[in-house]
Amino acid sequence: MDERLKALEQTIRTRRDADPSESYVASLRAKGRSKMAEKIGEEATEVVIAAIQNDKEAMKGEAADLLFHLMVLLADMDMSLEDAVTELAGREGLSGLEEKASRGVS
Amino acid sequence: MDERLKALEQTIRTRRDADPSESYVASLRAKGRSKMAEKIGEEATEVVIAAIQNDKEAMKGEAADLLFHLMVLLADMDMSLEDAVTELAGREGLSGLEEKASRGVS
Amino acid sequence: MDERLKALEQTIRTRRDADPSESYVASLRAKGRSKMAEKIGEEATEVVIAAIQNDKEAMKGEAADLLFHLMVLLADMDMSLEDAVTELAGREGLSGLEEKASRGVS
Amino acid sequence: MDERLKALEQTIRTRRDADPSESYVASLRAKGRSKMAEKIGEEATEVVIAAIQNDKEAMKGEAADLLFHLMVLLADMDMSLEDAVTELAGREGLSGLEEKASRGVS
Repeated sequence: MDERLKALEQTIRTRRDADPSESYVASLRAKGRSKMAEKIGEEATEVVIAAIQNDKEAMKGEAADLLFHLMVLLADMDMSLEDAVTELAGREGLSGLEEKASRGVS
Repeated sequence: MDERLKALEQTIRTRRDADPSESYVASLRAKGRSKMAEKIGEEATEVVIAAIQNDKEAMKGEAADLLFHLMVLLADMDMSLEDAVTELAGREGLSGLEEKASRGVS
Repeated sequence: MDERLKALEQTIRTRRDADPSESYVASLRAKGRSKMAEKIGEEATEVVIAAIQNDKEAMKGEAADLLFHLMVLLADMDMSLEDAVTELAGREGLSGLEEKASRGVS
Repeated sequence: MDERLKALEQTIRTRRDADPSESYVASLRAKGRSKMAEKIGEEATEVVIAAIQNDKEAMKGEAADLLFHLMVLLADMDMSLEDAVTELAGREGLSGLEEKASRGVS
């Protein structure tokens, strides 16, 4: 896993039980799973808007926000972005083979 | 950047101009930016549902789907997940300092 | 309640237990609550895109889709759009008074 | 159209140009179309969560919020909920006929 994302996930896990008044992650966690899930909907909508407006600067920030809140939500389920990346990497291998097969490439 | 994600982004870029009937990425791209953006909304909703249902197995797949379609959308804007991770890593450094400051830690 | 929406809700209720191969509503219901909820996320995203693109023709269709799937979801919870409208109407009265109060109007 | 929704839309139109510090509608409008569109994504996510949690009380409020922000967004496009209802009613007639036809009912 990317070292920066690993470090960030470690920070998220550490802050989960911090004082909600001092940590954004702790404040989200104090509000419960639903609030963390809501953030995914919000940030995804902002990603959609940045994409339709073709605003690269906004997209950078909104994609970062979405990724961050996905890590927060995964941490709340005792999961990690690594779970998603492992799943994706597994699919990719499969899909690569399927695509080759469909093109008649050995 | 994580090697598996880098490889997957490379594959996404390669497939963009493939035959839409042979590649999912090419088929999304042929339908246009709006369709790729719609997928973000769809997959985000599925992540939300898996989180509320506390279904880890579903969450793994839905988080992977969301990540994948985010990479597809970023690629369509000639961007990369790396842009979002760089942004996040920059913020994290800042936030780490702020948090220390707020705790009176030098 | 609007007569056309009332008639549509009646139709939705009637079709819920129809053959899923003959009715869209029955097919959604057969797939379960999660699938109906997913449609809200999908249609909301399409409304967002139409709004950002300022596409009135698309907006008409997407707003209709969102409203329709909201009625389907409400029906699955043995609720009606009337519940939401009653809630809204109650708030509006309150909010009207508050707004007058804030302007110093008696 | 439902009289209460018509009255609410009239209020929304009136407030659009009010002082943003005194009217929620004016404050949304001052922030621009994107902010109004974001609210659709947020409220839709809250509807999804209420549905998955089978929380009727929450659903009533979230469906009301979604409907309200849909009216605000439509008003910003010089459209009305009536446009969506007309569209829906037209479809319903068609779909009713199709469904009858598919059942061999004259």
